[in-house]
Amino acid sequence: MENKYLARIVVDVSIFLEYSDENIIDPDASMELLEQISSELQKMTDAERASLSKSIRELAPQYGPRANFVTDLPSNLGISV
Amino acid sequence: MENKYLARIVVDVSIFLEYSDENIIDPDASMELLEQISSELQKMTDAERASLSKSIRELAPQYGPRANFVTDLPSNLGISV
Repeated sequence: MENKYLARIVVDVSIFLEYSDENIIDPDASMELLEQISSELQKMTDAERASLSKSIRELAPQYGPRANFVTDLPSNLGISV
Repeated sequence: MENKYLARIVVDVSIFLEYSDENIIDPDASMELLEQISSELQKMTDAERASLSKSIRELAPQYGPRANFVTDLPSNLGISV
């Protein structure tokens, strides 16, 4: 199982939570789900987190104006090693 | 990379999207994100989808009253093989 699917889903969900207007998603609920995802990912081994961080950063150029957000995402999710 | 993290994140996000009140998340946006996740997962190979489906179903008992939702999730996401 490669982690490219995990990387893509983490990125897509994070972008949705970060950039959706408060009319779309309640900000508290959004923050809570992001923390839940972050907490789950922090259970990975160092090697797994490094690998996922790399996969996420490799996707960044595909996200145009949100590329910087994607590049910073591993750090913001607490999985940079 | 094991897929238990992917399984857990897919389950947690799906439960959030399925069970959140429309005051928490806009139903159309919720549906759209779920379809995006489903579409991404359908790019996996048959073997990967079978493995992820198994991992998701194994988590079901941990979700108490939502165990049935979790058991049915691989099928509802279109990744049952």
